Amino acid sequence: MKINVVRNILEANARIAAENRELFAEKKVLVMNLMSSPGAGKTSLLEKTIDSLKGRMAIGVIEGDIQSSQDAERIAAKDIPVVQINTGGACHLDGNMIRDTFHHFDFDALDLLVVENVGNLVCPAEFDLGEDVKVAILSVAEGDDKPAKYPLIFHESQALLINKIDLLPYVDCSVEKIRAESLKINTQIAILEVSCRTGLGISEWCAWLTDRIAAKGLGIK
Amino acid sequence: MKINVVRNILEANARIAAENRELFAEKKVLVMNLMSSPGAGKTSLLEKTIDSLKGRMAIGVIEGDIQSSQDAERIAAKDIPVVQINTGGACHLDGNMIRDTFHHFDFDALDLLVVENVGNLVCPAEFDLGEDVKVAILSVAEGDDKPAKYPLIFHESQALLINKIDLLPYVDCSVEKIRAESLKINTQIAILEVSCRTGLGISEWCAWLTDRIAAKGLGIK
Repeated sequence: MKINVVRNILEANARIAAENRELFAEKKVLVMNLMSSPGAGKTSLLEKTIDSLKGRMAIGVIEGDIQSSQDAERIAAKDIPVVQINTGGACHLDGNMIRDTFHHFDFDALDLLVVENVGNLVCPAEFDLGEDVKVAILSVAEGDDKPAKYPLIFHESQALLINKIDLLPYVDCSVEKIRAESLKINTQIAILEVSCRTGLGISEWCAWLTDRIAAKGLGIK
Repeated sequence: MKINVVRNILEANARIAAENRELFAEKKVLVMNLMSSPGAGKTSLLEKTIDSLKGRMAIGVIEGDIQSSQDAERIAAKDIPVVQINTGGACHLDGNMIRDTFHHFDFDALDLLVVENVGNLVCPAEFDLGEDVKVAILSVAEGDDKPAKYPLIFHESQALLINKIDLLPYVDCSVEKIRAESLKINTQIAILEVSCRTGLGISEWCAWLTDRIAAKGLGIK
């Protein structure tokens, strides 16, 4: 019975996500679902990404948080259209919450929509939002055992950003182990090392993201 | 309908948790539910705690992970009774999973049972396991905005350990802000600063934990 309920929820979500995906394709917007544990650096990465890409493409952002609008305020300071979703307790975003934000955006003028999910290395990976790419962030401060312990998010993501590389001298973490364990789970995953604090790897990351727009056959509007 | 299902699940869990709590009281075991984001340092804290308290009380451990038995192996190396729960995808432990481990333990010989929950700053806080105390860990690498963004776990916990204090010079995080924001959510929470890497604050933490056993009127067996 519990399993059936979960299946119904996921099926209902899949239907809405498919509709979202159709709209994004029609409007020629690349949509990225950004996922990680709390504090791995989603908002910081987004700030760096906007700084780097803002003059070259039109970016919109959906901020998912259980409570507070701190992240949306950080993004709004970049003069980018941003909508805050407060889930009020729920541990992940779903297709319906994304759909409810659509009237806030002019998709005809957008190239890239970034969805920053609730900070959680588990549940967000289970819910399709209709996005084109899922990207996971893992901070080196979290440790190199995380792919083996939380495999789904590594399995579902097209890219893994290993963040806070500048902390490597001060933590017990092997980037090689993270790479090897992630590739065991997902042979296709792109792995990039970044530091949002020092800017290391941000241009390579932005190149990867821009390539996704080209790969989808979308031009910059 | 969805809300009713959630309510039914939580009510069923509350009943089992109450039975667990009764058994723990009868057996005079203090039970602690240890919760945090992935990689905040739950297992490392547990290793340090066992090293410090092992000669003075009998400790047992339940390790909750989605997958893998790496954490249970780390604890077993300390020659402590330990049971690994693999949730197989579920993002939190519940009362029933805890009950299913009982035949592995000799409660008459235990003083302290530590339950290390799945790494997740959201969902574990919603599920009563029958524990006496909930303890949250937040690493300074996660940032000082976490209490405001994930309030439930700070609201539910009797103690907050601010871990990885040794990383403070290398991250943008104010311990004062974590303290102030946590106390806004929970005026009764005990806040301790620790570093599992350097050992800072571990003896104060172990004193707090030992006091909980005394406060519950339990002796050391």
